[in-house]
Amino acid sequence: MNLEQFSHYACERVNRYLDQTLSDYAPANGLQEAMRYSLFNGGKRVRPMLTYAVAQLFDEPNELTDACAAAVESIHAYSLIHDDLPAMDDDDLRRGKPTCHIQFDEATAILAGDALQTYAFELLCQEKLNQASTQLAVINTLQQASGRLGMVTGQMIDLSNVNKEMTLEELELMHRHKTGAIIRAAVRMGAQSVGVTNTDQLQALDNYAAAIGLAFQVQDDIIDITSDTQTLGKTQFSDADANKPTYPKLLGLEGAQALAKRLHDDAIEQVMSFGPKATPLVELANYIIARNH
Amino acid sequence: MNLEQFSHYACERVNRYLDQTLSDYAPANGLQEAMRYSLFNGGKRVRPMLTYAVAQLFDEPNELTDACAAAVESIHAYSLIHDDLPAMDDDDLRRGKPTCHIQFDEATAILAGDALQTYAFELLCQEKLNQASTQLAVINTLQQASGRLGMVTGQMIDLSNVNKEMTLEELELMHRHKTGAIIRAAVRMGAQSVGVTNTDQLQALDNYAAAIGLAFQVQDDIIDITSDTQTLGKTQFSDADANKPTYPKLLGLEGAQALAKRLHDDAIEQVMSFGPKATPLVELANYIIARNH
Repeated sequence: MNLEQFSHYACERVNRYLDQTLSDYAPANGLQEAMRYSLFNGGKRVRPMLTYAVAQLFDEPNELTDACAAAVESIHAYSLIHDDLPAMDDDDLRRGKPTCHIQFDEATAILAGDALQTYAFELLCQEKLNQASTQLAVINTLQQASGRLGMVTGQMIDLSNVNKEMTLEELELMHRHKTGAIIRAAVRMGAQSVGVTNTDQLQALDNYAAAIGLAFQVQDDIIDITSDTQTLGKTQFSDADANKPTYPKLLGLEGAQALAKRLHDDAIEQVMSFGPKATPLVELANYIIARNH
Repeated sequence: MNLEQFSHYACERVNRYLDQTLSDYAPANGLQEAMRYSLFNGGKRVRPMLTYAVAQLFDEPNELTDACAAAVESIHAYSLIHDDLPAMDDDDLRRGKPTCHIQFDEATAILAGDALQTYAFELLCQEKLNQASTQLAVINTLQQASGRLGMVTGQMIDLSNVNKEMTLEELELMHRHKTGAIIRAAVRMGAQSVGVTNTDQLQALDNYAAAIGLAFQVQDDIIDITSDTQTLGKTQFSDADANKPTYPKLLGLEGAQALAKRLHDDAIEQVMSFGPKATPLVELANYIIARNH
């Protein structure tokens, strides 16, 4: 399967699972409408792809793999809704469409984000999905990546540093929390869902995830100054305008491109030992630094 | 132990557990400061009291009981932070102190709420706290009560009905989700934490919880029109001013008082069979309709 085929497979599979499990709940239709709007707004499902791509290194993805893929995407969707709020990044557009608080209202957006976080845990604790100890392990991975020890702290570091100078180390610390933690969780949960316990393999996959997670951010910063608004689906220079620290600012454009390339090469090195089954992971790493939006 | 003693025991115990488990995490000190501000702002810990009071009907409360008590309180604290936001109820005072977004800022308040939700699940999935299947069961109870199937839907119903007429049934549906769900979870998790599986006992306790949950809300509405701002720690008539439906509006003050009394009596009936060990649950029910703030 090449990347396009694998992406199609993973998107179809996680979308079907999200659609089935986010059942109608009558008193909350307004809420679920906002949850669905943000979950199904054309996201590329990079995190679920990672979960499936890692699981299939070892075994056929199972229903817990589906739940893990859907849960990481739900956490991602909640974080975008809250990050876009007026009190945070104040963005009106996301992937070329009105953000949740523009499409609905601010209160609904806050609540939809809150409920999407809970929904991620709902998916993982379903009765008899897998061994209880395995379900508990993936819940633990997800919570560590999502809250005060991961993503939320990353957003807090980000907001605290608008209009401030940041060193390379501080910028990396922010990205490692804000986006890297969930990408690493997507990878680790994929392995956990099919029962992987070999620590060397888990470590190699974690190194891969950390490298592509950071490469993704460096490339995002590069895209922000090299692409235009139409390609981007958001306002060009939005990060630069907000006086946010970026890799091109700290390293120059060429320096940032060299860093992205180095992280990409590191990532591929980590998964070579898995052989041909690692093709989706390798192609995902290629895609991350080749993309222009 | 009378209620005052039991309250002291439960508060001390849950506060110590929260303080120990919410360990410092260097990159997130600003975030954790806001989380701690809202967790330790003088809440009466009614939900943890319920968790401990139910657990001790059957056995000595254990560390999972502590985690359950702390988790329900953390969900409660997160919900108060988000409910107080300008886009929601827009409250400046909570228990006589500045609300989280006033003390810090709106972005920090949103993130502190988000992180407190994750923290609740962090507490429950700690490794080797109890049997994995039991931990998974309490996580399931908490998520059902917190998200789209519970509390968040309740807040959504609440916001959708400002300036609208509501029937008694609609008002009850709202409260059953908005506050009742977490109170019932606090009770159920207390029983689950000490391994209770007897469905009759779980049902009686759930009936108790549903009755006191609703009684609590009816009494809140009564207090809102009979107490003054100093006693209340929030602005008097705040609910009435916002044109929110209340029990006294629908039933008159005496009708609302009669309903609170009936719910109180129902609640006590449900736990009589547990004998003297149910004293804290009985006294809690008494307190709920006797309190004036």
